[in-house]
Amino acid sequence: MTDTILDFECRFECDIAYLSEQLMRGRLTSQQLTQSAIDQHETSGANLNAYKSWQPEKALAMARQADQALAAGSTYQSLQGIPVSVKDIYGLEGYPIFVGARTELPAKWQRPGPVVETLAQQNAVFIGKTHTVEFAYGGLGVNNHWGTPKNPWDTNHHRVPGGSSAGAGVSLWEGSAVLALGTDTAGSVRLPASYTGNVGLKTSLGLWSTDGIVPLSPTFDTAGILTRTVVDSHIAFETIQQPGAYDEVIARVASQRAVDSKRSFRIGIDDGLMWTTTEHSIAEICLTALSALEDDACELVSFDFPEAERAIELRDAGSTISAELIEFLQSELPGRIDELDPVIRERIKMGGDISAIELLSRLRQLRIARQDARRRFENFDVIASPTVPLSPPLLSEVSTQKGYMPRNLLALQNTTVGSFLDFCAITVPVGLDRLGMPVGLQFMALARNEKLLLNIGRRLETIVRTRQMMPFHYTSNNEI
Amino acid sequence: MTDTILDFECRFECDIAYLSEQLMRGRLTSQQLTQSAIDQHETSGANLNAYKSWQPEKALAMARQADQALAAGSTYQSLQGIPVSVKDIYGLEGYPIFVGARTELPAKWQRPGPVVETLAQQNAVFIGKTHTVEFAYGGLGVNNHWGTPKNPWDTNHHRVPGGSSAGAGVSLWEGSAVLALGTDTAGSVRLPASYTGNVGLKTSLGLWSTDGIVPLSPTFDTAGILTRTVVDSHIAFETIQQPGAYDEVIARVASQRAVDSKRSFRIGIDDGLMWTTTEHSIAEICLTALSALEDDACELVSFDFPEAERAIELRDAGSTISAELIEFLQSELPGRIDELDPVIRERIKMGGDISAIELLSRLRQLRIARQDARRRFENFDVIASPTVPLSPPLLSEVSTQKGYMPRNLLALQNTTVGSFLDFCAITVPVGLDRLGMPVGLQFMALARNEKLLLNIGRRLETIVRTRQMMPFHYTSNNEI
Repeated sequence: MTDTILDFECRFECDIAYLSEQLMRGRLTSQQLTQSAIDQHETSGANLNAYKSWQPEKALAMARQADQALAAGSTYQSLQGIPVSVKDIYGLEGYPIFVGARTELPAKWQRPGPVVETLAQQNAVFIGKTHTVEFAYGGLGVNNHWGTPKNPWDTNHHRVPGGSSAGAGVSLWEGSAVLALGTDTAGSVRLPASYTGNVGLKTSLGLWSTDGIVPLSPTFDTAGILTRTVVDSHIAFETIQQPGAYDEVIARVASQRAVDSKRSFRIGIDDGLMWTTTEHSIAEICLTALSALEDDACELVSFDFPEAERAIELRDAGSTISAELIEFLQSELPGRIDELDPVIRERIKMGGDISAIELLSRLRQLRIARQDARRRFENFDVIASPTVPLSPPLLSEVSTQKGYMPRNLLALQNTTVGSFLDFCAITVPVGLDRLGMPVGLQFMALARNEKLLLNIGRRLETIVRTRQMMPFHYTSNNEI
Repeated sequence: MTDTILDFECRFECDIAYLSEQLMRGRLTSQQLTQSAIDQHETSGANLNAYKSWQPEKALAMARQADQALAAGSTYQSLQGIPVSVKDIYGLEGYPIFVGARTELPAKWQRPGPVVETLAQQNAVFIGKTHTVEFAYGGLGVNNHWGTPKNPWDTNHHRVPGGSSAGAGVSLWEGSAVLALGTDTAGSVRLPASYTGNVGLKTSLGLWSTDGIVPLSPTFDTAGILTRTVVDSHIAFETIQQPGAYDEVIARVASQRAVDSKRSFRIGIDDGLMWTTTEHSIAEICLTALSALEDDACELVSFDFPEAERAIELRDAGSTISAELIEFLQSELPGRIDELDPVIRERIKMGGDISAIELLSRLRQLRIARQDARRRFENFDVIASPTVPLSPPLLSEVSTQKGYMPRNLLALQNTTVGSFLDFCAITVPVGLDRLGMPVGLQFMALARNEKLLLNIGRRLETIVRTRQMMPFHYTSNNEI
C-alpha cells in the first residue's frame, strides 16, 4: 500500500488529515510516506521539472527523525512527518539557494526564517526546493536559466505552470509534496495554484514574517501556502499560526468549521475589469460556482469597485516593485543585475529610475485606494473574482518579450488587486476551461481575515466535490 | 464641589476611574465636569497657550449629550462624559484644522478618523484642539505662527513644553482635559508627556488607524495618548482598542492587573548613547526608579544595543521623514511649502532630495536593524531608558536654527530609537531634575505589547507614588 499512497489514483486519500491520522496511529511511517513522495517525483513528475534542488537522502533523514520522535513517545505534532516542498526563495539549512538566478546566492541566504523554522520544529519533512522565476519577478513561471516547469494538465504541449512559485503547484500535482511553501507579491502563490488546480492562500501583509526569504518587494511580499484542498490549507495555516500538537490544531479547525456551518456569507461581485477582461469560459465557470454558493445560503452583492482599477493603473504606472528589486540587488548582490535574464533585466530597469518623491507619491495613492477599498466591505464579507483571467499560455507564446509582457500583466491582474489593496486572498479550483485547464475562483478579504477565507473556501470546496465540477478526486475530512 | 473638581489641589481625585464612577452614579454630571475643565483652562491655564481652537459651547453641548444618554437609561460607556483634548492634527468635525500652519487646511481634513470616531461614539467630550508644531515636524513644541505653549513646571521662564503634541501635556496639567490625543512619529507623544510630568503611550505602528490624521511620515506615524497616570492610560487604551461599557473595560483592566501582580519583569538596560548622552541628574533619577523596580521583584539585565546607535545614525543621515513630508505637501497642499516657518522649511528641504533607490536603501537598513533588535528581547521583556536626555530648554535657547537643531535632535534621540525599531513605548514620570523639571522613564517593548508596557508602568507608578518621588498627588485606583 505505502508505495502507492501518493499515486494519482489514490490521491483521494491523500489529504493532510488522512495522512496525519495514519502517521499518528502508526499505520504509516514518515519514511514510507517520504519514499513514496520521492518515487512519485521520479515517476509521474519525471518530465515536469518541479524542483531546483532535489536531495532525497536529506528528506529521508528528516522522515526518520519524525518517526523516531513519535516512537520515543512524543506527542504527534501537526504536520509531523508530512512532505513539504519549499520554493527556492526561502532559506533552508544545507540547501543551495538560487532564487531562479544563474549563480548561487551567498550562504547567508540559506538561514531559515520563522515559517521554515516552525515547520522544522513540527518535524515536517522538507522534500526539496522548487523552481521559481528569477528573483520572483514574473507571474507565468518562466525561467530561462533552469527551464520552465511543465503544467501537468496539458500532456500534449508545454504550457506554463504559473509563477513565480513555478514548481510549487507542480510538486502537489505530481505527489511529491502535500504542502508547498510559496511567496506572493502580486499573485505568485495564487496564480500557480490556480493554473495547476490547487488551493493557494496569500496571507495578509505582515502576518507571517518574511525574514529568511529573499525579498522582491518588502512593500508587498507575503509568505503563502499551496495545498490540494482547502481543508489542508486550513490545517497548514493553523499550524503555522499557532504550532502545536495535531489534536489541538485539528480541534481549532473543527471548531471554526462548526461556527461557519451556521452562518451565511455575503459575497461582493463587481462588474469591472476583473470580470470584463476574463476569458468567457473562465468567467462562466466562476459564475457557476458563485451561483452554487448562492444556493447554499450565501448572498451575492453587486458593487462598483473603482479601487481595483486604480490598483491596476498604479501597477501599470510602475508601482514600486522594480525599484525595490534594483535596490536589493545593488545593495546585497552587486554585479548581479548584469547576470539577470535579459527579459527580466529590461523590465526591472524600466521601472526603477524614479525619485524618492515619486515613489512616495505612488505609495500615498496606494494608501488612499486601500482606505477607500476597506469601506466597501461594509456590504459584504469577501470579494470574489476569477483568479486568473486567461488560460495558461503555451511556453512558445511567451518566449519573446512581445508575447510575454501583455500575458504576464493580464495573468497577474486580478491577484495584484488584492496585493495592492492589502487584502488576504485564497484561490479554490472550481472547474476546467475550454482548453481543459484548471480554473480558480479567488476570494479576497480584509487583512487578517484568513479564517473567513478558509471557511468560505471550505464551503465552496464541498460544493465543487459534491457536484463534481472538477475531474479529480481529492477528498477531505468533512467532519473536521 | 464641582467647580473645584479639577483644581490642582484636588487633582489627586481626578483620575478617569474616579470621575467615571462619579458620573456613572450620578454624583457628577458631565456638564459640571466640563464646565470645571473650561474654568481651569481660563484660570490655571490662562497664560499657558495649550489650545489652538477653544470652543467651550461645543464641549458643553457634547457634555449635555453624554448626560442625556445616561439619563435616558443607556449603559454608561467607558470615557463617556470625560473631557478629552485633541491635537490639531486630527480631523474633528466642525473644528478648523491648521496642523500648526499659518493657513487653515481644506475642510476635508476635518473628517474624523477611527480613533476620534470611537471616542465620539463613547460620548467622550472633545474640549478643544491643542497646539502642535507645524506639520508635527519637531520635538520641542516650538511654533512661531501661533506661539509656543508654556511648560507649566517653570513659572519663572518660558521653557518649551515638548512636541510636536505641544499643547497636549499642558492641557492635562492645567486640568482642562483628563485624556489628550497626540501623535508620535519619533517621540511626539512621549516627549511632551515627559516634559510636562505626564504619562505618554506611543502605540505600535499600524495598531491604531492613522486615517483622519494629517500625515507627517506614513512610515513612522502612530496615534497615541497622554494621561496623568498609567491607570488612566490603561483605561483609555483598552477603551480605544475595544470600546464598550465602562464596567467591561474596567473588568479587562483589572484582570490584566491581577495577572501582572503575580509576575516578575525583566528589564533590559544598555550602556549606549541613550544613557551616555543623558544629563547626569536625569540619568540618576531614572536609575533610582529602576533600582526601586529591582527591589520590587523585577530583574535588570545589561545588554549591548548597537541597533539603537544604527537607528540614530539612520535618522542623522536623513531618514525618510523629510521626503515624506515634502511629497505630502506637494501632492495635497501645493504652494504650502513656501508658507512654512523658514526654520522648518530649511530642515525638510535638506532631507528630501534623494532617489527612490536611496530611500529604499534606508528602509532596508531599517528593516535589518529591526530584525536584529527583535532578537535582543530573548533576554528581557522591555528596554528602559531616560525618555529625554536633556531638560526642557528655554524658548530663548532654541529661537535660532543653531540653538534649535542640536537640542531638537538630542531631545528626540531616545524616543526615535523606539519609533525606528518598531517598538511600542511608554513614558512614566519618575521625578524632577536639577532644574525642578519633570523626568520621564521610557519603557519600550516589541510591537503590539502595549499591555505589557501598561502593566510594568503601573507597577512603577505605584512605587513612584509610595516613595513620593514626584511632588504631585495623583492617585490611582489600585484595586483595578
